[in-house]
Amino acid sequence: MHILVINPNTTVGMTEKIEAAANRAAASGTQITAVTSASGPVSIEGYYDEALSVPGLLKVIRDRADFDAVVIACFDDTGLDAARCVTDKPVIGIGEAAYSMAGMLANKFSVVTTLARSVPALEHNLMKYGLDRRCARVRSSEVAVLDLEDDSSGAYEKIAAEIARAIADDKAEAIVLGCAGMTDLASKLSQQFDRPVLDGVACAVSLAEAMARLQLKTSRHGGYAPPPQHKLEVQS
Amino acid sequence: MHILVINPNTTVGMTEKIEAAANRAAASGTQITAVTSASGPVSIEGYYDEALSVPGLLKVIRDRADFDAVVIACFDDTGLDAARCVTDKPVIGIGEAAYSMAGMLANKFSVVTTLARSVPALEHNLMKYGLDRRCARVRSSEVAVLDLEDDSSGAYEKIAAEIARAIADDKAEAIVLGCAGMTDLASKLSQQFDRPVLDGVACAVSLAEAMARLQLKTSRHGGYAPPPQHKLEVQS
Amino acid sequence: MHILVINPNTTVGMTEKIEAAANRAAASGTQITAVTSASGPVSIEGYYDEALSVPGLLKVIRDRADFDAVVIACFDDTGLDAARCVTDKPVIGIGEAAYSMAGMLANKFSVVTTLARSVPALEHNLMKYGLDRRCARVRSSEVAVLDLEDDSSGAYEKIAAEIARAIADDKAEAIVLGCAGMTDLASKLSQQFDRPVLDGVACAVSLAEAMARLQLKTSRHGGYAPPPQHKLEVQS
Amino acid sequence: MHILVINPNTTVGMTEKIEAAANRAAASGTQITAVTSASGPVSIEGYYDEALSVPGLLKVIRDRADFDAVVIACFDDTGLDAARCVTDKPVIGIGEAAYSMAGMLANKFSVVTTLARSVPALEHNLMKYGLDRRCARVRSSEVAVLDLEDDSSGAYEKIAAEIARAIADDKAEAIVLGCAGMTDLASKLSQQFDRPVLDGVACAVSLAEAMARLQLKTSRHGGYAPPPQHKLEVQS
Amino acid sequence: MHILVINPNTTVGMTEKIEAAANRAAASGTQITAVTSASGPVSIEGYYDEALSVPGLLKVIRDRADFDAVVIACFDDTGLDAARCVTDKPVIGIGEAAYSMAGMLANKFSVVTTLARSVPALEHNLMKYGLDRRCARVRSSEVAVLDLEDDSSGAYEKIAAEIARAIADDKAEAIVLGCAGMTDLASKLSQQFDRPVLDGVACAVSLAEAMARLQLKTSRHGGYAPPPQHKLEVQS
Amino acid sequence: MHILVINPNTTVGMTEKIEAAANRAAASGTQITAVTSASGPVSIEGYYDEALSVPGLLKVIRDRADFDAVVIACFDDTGLDAARCVTDKPVIGIGEAAYSMAGMLANKFSVVTTLARSVPALEHNLMKYGLDRRCARVRSSEVAVLDLEDDSSGAYEKIAAEIARAIADDKAEAIVLGCAGMTDLASKLSQQFDRPVLDGVACAVSLAEAMARLQLKTSRHGGYAPPPQHKLEVQS
Repeated sequence: MHILVINPNTTVGMTEKIEAAANRAAASGTQITAVTSASGPVSIEGYYDEALSVPGLLKVIRDRADFDAVVIACFDDTGLDAARCVTDKPVIGIGEAAYSMAGMLANKFSVVTTLARSVPALEHNLMKYGLDRRCARVRSSEVAVLDLEDDSSGAYEKIAAEIARAIADDKAEAIVLGCAGMTDLASKLSQQFDRPVLDGVACAVSLAEAMARLQLKTSRHGGYAPPPQHKLEVQS
Repeated sequence: MHILVINPNTTVGMTEKIEAAANRAAASGTQITAVTSASGPVSIEGYYDEALSVPGLLKVIRDRADFDAVVIACFDDTGLDAARCVTDKPVIGIGEAAYSMAGMLANKFSVVTTLARSVPALEHNLMKYGLDRRCARVRSSEVAVLDLEDDSSGAYEKIAAEIARAIADDKAEAIVLGCAGMTDLASKLSQQFDRPVLDGVACAVSLAEAMARLQLKTSRHGGYAPPPQHKLEVQS
Repeated sequence: MHILVINPNTTVGMTEKIEAAANRAAASGTQITAVTSASGPVSIEGYYDEALSVPGLLKVIRDRADFDAVVIACFDDTGLDAARCVTDKPVIGIGEAAYSMAGMLANKFSVVTTLARSVPALEHNLMKYGLDRRCARVRSSEVAVLDLEDDSSGAYEKIAAEIARAIADDKAEAIVLGCAGMTDLASKLSQQFDRPVLDGVACAVSLAEAMARLQLKTSRHGGYAPPPQHKLEVQS
Repeated sequence: MHILVINPNTTVGMTEKIEAAANRAAASGTQITAVTSASGPVSIEGYYDEALSVPGLLKVIRDRADFDAVVIACFDDTGLDAARCVTDKPVIGIGEAAYSMAGMLANKFSVVTTLARSVPALEHNLMKYGLDRRCARVRSSEVAVLDLEDDSSGAYEKIAAEIARAIADDKAEAIVLGCAGMTDLASKLSQQFDRPVLDGVACAVSLAEAMARLQLKTSRHGGYAPPPQHKLEVQS
Repeated sequence: MHILVINPNTTVGMTEKIEAAANRAAASGTQITAVTSASGPVSIEGYYDEALSVPGLLKVIRDRADFDAVVIACFDDTGLDAARCVTDKPVIGIGEAAYSMAGMLANKFSVVTTLARSVPALEHNLMKYGLDRRCARVRSSEVAVLDLEDDSSGAYEKIAAEIARAIADDKAEAIVLGCAGMTDLASKLSQQFDRPVLDGVACAVSLAEAMARLQLKTSRHGGYAPPPQHKLEVQS
Repeated sequence: MHILVINPNTTVGMTEKIEAAANRAAASGTQITAVTSASGPVSIEGYYDEALSVPGLLKVIRDRADFDAVVIACFDDTGLDAARCVTDKPVIGIGEAAYSMAGMLANKFSVVTTLARSVPALEHNLMKYGLDRRCARVRSSEVAVLDLEDDSSGAYEKIAAEIARAIADDKAEAIVLGCAGMTDLASKLSQQFDRPVLDGVACAVSLAEAMARLQLKTSRHGGYAPPPQHKLEVQS
């Protein structure tokens, strides 16, 4: 089993953290290949970054054939629909994976993400997946993505404070961490708050393994039909 | 890893078919224990059967402690919310597992279930999970659950005919089979129709393994809070 | 006219309170028969209790034929869909009755129920009935069901405080009391807060009379089709 | 008990038919006063007619004080919100009453109304009440309102044909008749199609009695707050 | 280009303010005719006023033929559907125009209107237009419509305070002013709060010009089909 | 007034057709600059093409400052949210413009687009804008985008046939043409079918003029907040 985990931003340190999380989550025998996108922004915070990171992400998938499933390791599920057009292997976004699992562990969850500018894209995804019905609120901790790489930034405390508010005000029964860069915080936060705190990287890797083991394929009809060959050769 | 798979009806032959499907889906090293409920109807077709099968199902969970996750192997996700109150291990319904995975492989799917009387309960679940947004239509094949156990019933042909209609009329990009008893038909139907045809038993077992490996737990706060001990001892 | 009012928990004192409320609500000439379920939990607070109380409730309906309509006197509308499969007489839940009437008296209402653990099941029902569009919020007063039977529990004050918050914060134009055990408080609270405060027992009895007088019947097609005889004879 | 039933169009023959239906539905001891609006169109088919009929309807309510509840006997629930501002007695529309009761007898119902031009207003009401979730489809029989007063118009046959389509295509478990002028057809159609066929006049009268007996009042806060006296004196 | 702008209440001073705003918004070469309704309430605050103002508004449209588009200058979009039945020219409500444009400038907006009694009608419109998905909250400033005509009423400050709350609590990225009488405040508030503050009169006039220039027509089929001539001649 | 109209695909002939349509729609005095994207696919049919066209589209906007509003002339509203992050001028998608105007001319419209693969992205946009409530159905004519540039392709007839089905089956009161390449067909189709047939290019240009004249700006807070300078300089 080989899972391709793509960090669609260009920050290698973040890919390393994601790779470590993916390896912790994977079953024995699963090979994780974590790839940093060759082009795009250093972090993905909102619609603009998201748009610029998609071509690099699609190129990673097109250039490789040796995987059983793909994980897109950005919490806004960057380029998810487009990626499903270029492979018949399962493609899982870390946002959708975390929301889906949270909805199976709790009646209601809240999301704690980085900056306010990232909130609408997440709300939009939740609506598309139907999981806005289970999500009480998407909250921003006002921790920038790259501050998560900096131990002195006070990121943990800010995120914990926002989780405390989600529990008190939203009656959140579970919490979803809204950034790939928070992947190393989930376990400690889960203990601190005595309820599920989900990290999308782990959820998506495990779900991708599950779907690959079942030999499930992305549909080749309708919206995910493969583009004609001449279009696949175009680079943006 | 030990997954408890509960058939909430009392037909042992159906449990055996479910067990075989669960073992096919499971990772090596996973132990599947398939249990037939000790009380309840011989098949679950609609609200009444569903209601009568829940106490027996809950008793199976309460009586055992040696599992890492539970799968409820009836497509209407019988007693799912109640079951989540009696264990902190993940509890996955085969309906919700199949819908969730279908929504990650296709923009739009249709469900093909057994009898018309079963349709409203499934529609209701889809609304609750938010996946009515991705489900084009829930269709009945007018094959009774126990006819699925009878090779001469023409069940395969009736189900295939309904799938053909779902593709033509609903533009379904994927199909979800709406009964645990259809678990052995998924692979052949998937090939025949050249698109994902999902069986909930396989989806749920694999998802349960994934969530158990991640050590995710059902929330103990809010709607799934454990009942007080004196209530757990009551039998209906 | 004969209305069968079923208390699906096993607390006789609560049945008596419900019976008194039903008699106050009924038209002259209506006979109320209030029945305590023979099996199940002492109170219904959340999904688990709800599930265990359904078989006893269904047995009450199956064992009697001499009624014109049935009222299920638990605010989470326990077993409502299943009950509609076993009789062609109207079956009304006290939750749905109160929500429906509140939606005809006010643009927006809030619900004040007992414990936080009961909230998700009510939210789920509201979504199913479509009345989440009219319900501003489901609030818990943190008064346990059986504390409502105890005059020294301070229940009235806690409920009144929660209503005050619903008016201030939710702009609730009406209030629905979210437990059969609150039936005797509605009139006083309605006066105190100068707006409709609805008790589901009264609403449901009156609605059941209305539907019975019109000789309306539960549909025998689709989701409420009667189960075959051999299934009706099964006990869970 | 005194129920004021208002026909908001100016066709006296239709008021007489409505009055007869109301009397058939009413409990013994209930006095029905059926009033024809003094101004407005001869029939209400769509938004324009609806708008012009409201001032006359409001005048009927303002001019009378001797009632316990009001029924608005036009299926598009003409002026319902405005009417609730001018009295604290319950005001029930025949559309909302029929939809609500249908939703308690069936998982899914279809509406059969008069002309295509009337359909959007009904769909809009269903969305507002949340009952679009239970309504499979609003269908027009292309029978004009006043043709319902003409025995030779073939109205019954056209309506029956549309009901047959609703059962076959929409899987409707119950039917709601979408015009006050169809009130005399419900019983025969219900027998013919062996499932509930609801007439809004009967439903609303019976529901109004129920709410009046419970002494429920329209909320005086928020959207239904009474207008100041100087505004009540204005005539359009 | 000739735009007919109708103030559906009878306060001439308000028409004058609306006319000035319409002229500021209009392209050069556009003629604005602002008309005060000849009948109806002095201000429109909620359902009752709205209902009484519609016949006068429809009469203005029926009596004139020399326009290219109509603007209904009351924020609850009084009589909008009915008005579309009596002309094939575009008819635009100031509420729908402002909501639509706000949804193109911001992910999420809040509405600040006059009195609490007006809120439900606006919420209802938002749901009908689908823009409840983009509207965070409808807030009342508790400034009566006619107080907006009185410079000493402190209206500006109250509205500004409510906008500040919408930004802090709702995370509103834009604000819609919920009354035609606030038309002269938009520009100053927009500067004060550094984000779009939309006035419906300007939005609707500009949108009406746009649609008229494109020679778009209201559909004559379905819900906006013109009533038969004998009905157009009826006055309420 | 200067409107920048961007064709996000690289087919110059299509830009020319769009430019002509934009000029027909524009007010006198409006300058239209139509720009072909320098990179991306030759046509946009579905998610993959859409993703690859966004960076080129964003570059056009970043490279120019001399416009009052932007129109994105691809019916799937390619990169709309990202584009709003890079300018404070209004940015209008031709899809959203056409849907919004259709919703003001008709209760219900259907969309007729090119290929089945494009349908899900449009359905997704409609849900995001809330206009799925007004859209009866998104239909594909199975005319590829570039076949619209070929007079011998029979495109008109195929589109007309699909419109006929939309009217018969969906009861569509108006039609939205779902591709920028259909811009020259709207007028003839509108006459043929005697109801509004909307072209998004015209709608968006006119709406962009309207919003620019009102000096409305895209919000700089929340989801459309401008990215930091160092990110704006990144090219994908």
